[in-house]
Amino acid sequence: MNETEATESGLIRRVAIVGGMHGNELTGVYLVKKFQQFPNLLARSSLDCTTLLANPGAIAANRRYLERDLNRCFANDDLANSALTGYEDQRAKEIAAQLGPKHQPNIDLIIDLHSTTSNMGLTIFPSSKHPFNLRLAAYLSQLDPAVRVTCGIRCNQDTPMLRSLSPFGCTIEVGAIAQGILDAKLLQQTEMLVHAILDYLDAINQKKPFPVPSSLTVYQAISVIDYPQNSLGELQAMIHPQLQFKDYEPLHNGAPMFLSFTGESIPYQGETVVYPIFINEAAYYEAKIALILTEKQQIGLGSHK
Amino acid sequence: MNETEATESGLIRRVAIVGGMHGNELTGVYLVKKFQQFPNLLARSSLDCTTLLANPGAIAANRRYLERDLNRCFANDDLANSALTGYEDQRAKEIAAQLGPKHQPNIDLIIDLHSTTSNMGLTIFPSSKHPFNLRLAAYLSQLDPAVRVTCGIRCNQDTPMLRSLSPFGCTIEVGAIAQGILDAKLLQQTEMLVHAILDYLDAINQKKPFPVPSSLTVYQAISVIDYPQNSLGELQAMIHPQLQFKDYEPLHNGAPMFLSFTGESIPYQGETVVYPIFINEAAYYEAKIALILTEKQQIGLGSHK
Repeated sequence: MNETEATESGLIRRVAIVGGMHGNELTGVYLVKKFQQFPNLLARSSLDCTTLLANPGAIAANRRYLERDLNRCFANDDLANSALTGYEDQRAKEIAAQLGPKHQPNIDLIIDLHSTTSNMGLTIFPSSKHPFNLRLAAYLSQLDPAVRVTCGIRCNQDTPMLRSLSPFGCTIEVGAIAQGILDAKLLQQTEMLVHAILDYLDAINQKKPFPVPSSLTVYQAISVIDYPQNSLGELQAMIHPQLQFKDYEPLHNGAPMFLSFTGESIPYQGETVVYPIFINEAAYYEAKIALILTEKQQIGLGSHK
Repeated sequence: MNETEATESGLIRRVAIVGGMHGNELTGVYLVKKFQQFPNLLARSSLDCTTLLANPGAIAANRRYLERDLNRCFANDDLANSALTGYEDQRAKEIAAQLGPKHQPNIDLIIDLHSTTSNMGLTIFPSSKHPFNLRLAAYLSQLDPAVRVTCGIRCNQDTPMLRSLSPFGCTIEVGAIAQGILDAKLLQQTEMLVHAILDYLDAINQKKPFPVPSSLTVYQAISVIDYPQNSLGELQAMIHPQLQFKDYEPLHNGAPMFLSFTGESIPYQGETVVYPIFINEAAYYEAKIALILTEKQQIGLGSHK
């Protein structure tokens, strides 16, 4: 099924709900376990739902990954590279065989459940900017104004992320939550979003689509900022206290961004007002990401056909 | 030097400041690195300060420990057991040789810097209930009312923790903070506490002791509560949303404690009002600790001699 067929005929029927892509993000792990124990929770007459714990090795070790970030292993070249034989490399190939391949996936829509130490509330990362995904995201943010919709710098099937296996779907990113713990409220909110997505898809399939707003606010990632370091690569500064937990709040030219260990404030310097996300995400220290800057965009939406 | 000599003569001169006992608790790691880069920060005329990164292997791996929790390796029997040869076993012996032994330590007072995913603010765990430690703790909580003083179920040199190497000193536990990140405000507050301790010790040595309150509120740990599990040991419930982040707040009989994955509330049942701590600490899932109950006690203090 291609994109046009899927969305214009309303035939998104095969849905995958994935948790534990990162083994220490317990919200998705325990939600998927719950869905596996009580599959009736996912029952919608027009949908066939698959659940998947993506990285069992990392889940057992309570770590993000064992050898390599699994959610960066889904580039087509890597999936086709037989020389990549590490735990996550192999796991990605297994998952791609089950849910993919990208050009003709076995699954119509993927929901990938994540959490972050950043204060990102309830964030939807659409798998692509396809109007179908944007309408779904708009529906979710209308349902709960706390939901924000964000697009990565790359926001299509070229990314090496799980969600790239299908043009349809999204990553759900909730926070702030420490790695390795459950926060009951965030788990309940994530579950609510999964149910809302399934209900939305089922309503389309029943030819009774839910109304969707005519426009959508999207936070479009534009650049990545690393921590200040010395020549040895050692951290020299922290996220400034005034920026900590301020994801999605406007950051103006000259506003404090970092605080050095010796007490100097390091400001944001930029012409435009930006909206930082992933501020102080634990897993991104090694990825050299202190925060990601986004621009706020308003996107008009067509109605569902 | 024995306890009486040390405290009555004011001869606490050799101080160790330890970070990175747990490799993913970055507050202590980076504070100790800062002190090592700028040793003048620790300079007090009557004190000789040693700094130590306790678990370099775990720090490099950004994990709590490599093989075994280092802060449970300081029992005398384990330190004397030549059959224990793991990374943390050996590291504990090295540290005990440098700072200990318990009966006659090379260091008079140990400050061990930790952090927690629980909302424990600024907590002081005195190494023992020796009046010297309690007076120091009372001084710190008078200086900043946000400081709370807490004693473990075992609170003396019998524990297997680093702080047991000396009868004098404390663990500083700050949170809520995720593992693997720096929170500038908590780092600054921890640094302030270290300086306050050094100033307090130096003032005693200069025969100009700081005034100390005549009594102190201590949260005395009385019992440990594990998560509800099924017969396979699988988690069945989470910390209840009404209890999350409510460390040190009174918990009454019948108040919700856990929320099961199927939505049932599980209450606290107990005759007495308790004050829970370490609520939802990430590292304690595997230790089978969902929270620790404390009782609030008022302790009268003698004046410094």
